[in-house]
Amino acid sequence: MTTDLVAALDIGGTKIAGALVDDSGAVRERFQVPTPTREPGEAVLAAVEEVFAALVATPGWAAVRGVGIGSAGPVDAAAGAVSPVNIPGWRGFPLVAAVRRTLGAGLPVTLVGDGAAIAAGEHWCGAARGVDNALCMVVSTGVGGGLVLDGRLRTGPSGNAGHIGHLCVELDGEKCPCGGRGCVEGIASGTAIARWAGEHGLRAPDGGPPTAAHVAAAAREGDAVATAAFRRAARALGAGIAATATLVDLDVVVIGGGVAQAGAVLFDPLATALAEYAALPYVRGLPVRAALLGGDAGLVGAAAEARRTAGGG
Amino acid sequence: MTTDLVAALDIGGTKIAGALVDDSGAVRERFQVPTPTREPGEAVLAAVEEVFAALVATPGWAAVRGVGIGSAGPVDAAAGAVSPVNIPGWRGFPLVAAVRRTLGAGLPVTLVGDGAAIAAGEHWCGAARGVDNALCMVVSTGVGGGLVLDGRLRTGPSGNAGHIGHLCVELDGEKCPCGGRGCVEGIASGTAIARWAGEHGLRAPDGGPPTAAHVAAAAREGDAVATAAFRRAARALGAGIAATATLVDLDVVVIGGGVAQAGAVLFDPLATALAEYAALPYVRGLPVRAALLGGDAGLVGAAAEARRTAGGG
Repeated sequence: MTTDLVAALDIGGTKIAGALVDDSGAVRERFQVPTPTREPGEAVLAAVEEVFAALVATPGWAAVRGVGIGSAGPVDAAAGAVSPVNIPGWRGFPLVAAVRRTLGAGLPVTLVGDGAAIAAGEHWCGAARGVDNALCMVVSTGVGGGLVLDGRLRTGPSGNAGHIGHLCVELDGEKCPCGGRGCVEGIASGTAIARWAGEHGLRAPDGGPPTAAHVAAAAREGDAVATAAFRRAARALGAGIAATATLVDLDVVVIGGGVAQAGAVLFDPLATALAEYAALPYVRGLPVRAALLGGDAGLVGAAAEARRTAGGG
Repeated sequence: MTTDLVAALDIGGTKIAGALVDDSGAVRERFQVPTPTREPGEAVLAAVEEVFAALVATPGWAAVRGVGIGSAGPVDAAAGAVSPVNIPGWRGFPLVAAVRRTLGAGLPVTLVGDGAAIAAGEHWCGAARGVDNALCMVVSTGVGGGLVLDGRLRTGPSGNAGHIGHLCVELDGEKCPCGGRGCVEGIASGTAIARWAGEHGLRAPDGGPPTAAHVAAAAREGDAVATAAFRRAARALGAGIAATATLVDLDVVVIGGGVAQAGAVLFDPLATALAEYAALPYVRGLPVRAALLGGDAGLVGAAAEARRTAGGG
């Protein structure tokens, strides 16, 4: 048994997961509960407490030296508060203080946004390992991401840096629930892909509205609407990635999440789109890699950040 | 006389300027020559040598401890080479080696892009002084910029980070000379503002095609086409600034350059555009400041970078 573990928490719109993570980035214990997104804030906190209770009951808990939290955003890292778009019961919710109270100990607690956490995870022991400048993205229900710059996670003063899903790539595009307009997420998320394909006549096998997985399957079989839906998403992703590389100067882009599992149906038109939008010499030919950590990236990254802020990494 | 000066060089598409800069950021000596943009690369280097010869002949030269160069981009900081879009005679030109040869001494030579140099200047002793996270932009013939993140200039591995003029804000926008499409610069530069207004019927007082200054004057007098030209530019700038703030998390945006001198004609619709595109809580209300250093920002910033890489700043 290692003598140095971190407790990691990953708070999303679907599930709340917790784990003990060792100093190699391995997940030792793992518990998760559904996020009670439609209930009041106290019920969401109760779900967090349930996950911590399970972790505290493991033999490894005695070796825990810190707590890392990655939460759906926006977050306010300085205030230790979160306002996840998909968890309406939490608005400016003082999560760090609540976790400190729950654990009742002197453990340091670190908070970052979920996109930043995923980037920290892929950088520590995934597809961005050893890379100094990387954008790590998730394309699933939404589009999120985080940045590694000069070998370190860039969280920014608020903790939300890397939020590529809300870059505008269409000046006259649709209004976005974030309040902006023409955002990458509104065109390239799984939700947007499914909606666009449905509006253009694609149906699920049962005749109902398609999911992003249905659209991917249809695109693999050559369906024109499904192919166009992925091409449209890939152009928005390509423009957003190109903008990011132009702005901060990257070595690598890492893409994970459910939609990325569509494979060539997404990655082929993405390569075409990157060639179209990323033309300056220092941006051209940017390598795109598939994420390696899957659903645990946020836990591993939250642990990485807890170690780093504790001076251990 | 100070005992510690830096020689700074600012290479642009119009002029090549050089100066000695003291440790307070004050410009002590200043020489400039027109950039012979249509001549072979040797002629451009001869212009650089002419500026250095003038600096070397000043009494202050004996106190020079390093050389900082800010050059029109793209640059390749690692290779010490430059390929300025507007100086076709220089493609992969080994500028750092050439300057070392010209000076024949053991002075350290630092190279950054011109946008990064301006950001370094405004951060050292201009509108971004004391700010840890800033985008500093120039809106003139083109649109350029640089980033200060966590209190330091972000040059990126290639030296080109902060190149906001080539962010895509229109997926189906016009092809850009950079090779991309729908770039901020293609909509918001002085060149683009003048062209769009001319295409929509605005004329200069002499009946010819208008300049950006003519468009600004007409907008101040309430001309509808001129007002629309600035509104269109401001929306592209607003979307680009919002994308940058969303991505890296900023405290302040600083805007300088000839078009920015149009004043309220630009800054009023820019405030409206920022409200439209920068809606997430950590981006909303981003302060916009006018640049303070004017045309010397690149020289002062190149000096700042030379000092920093020498370990002095």
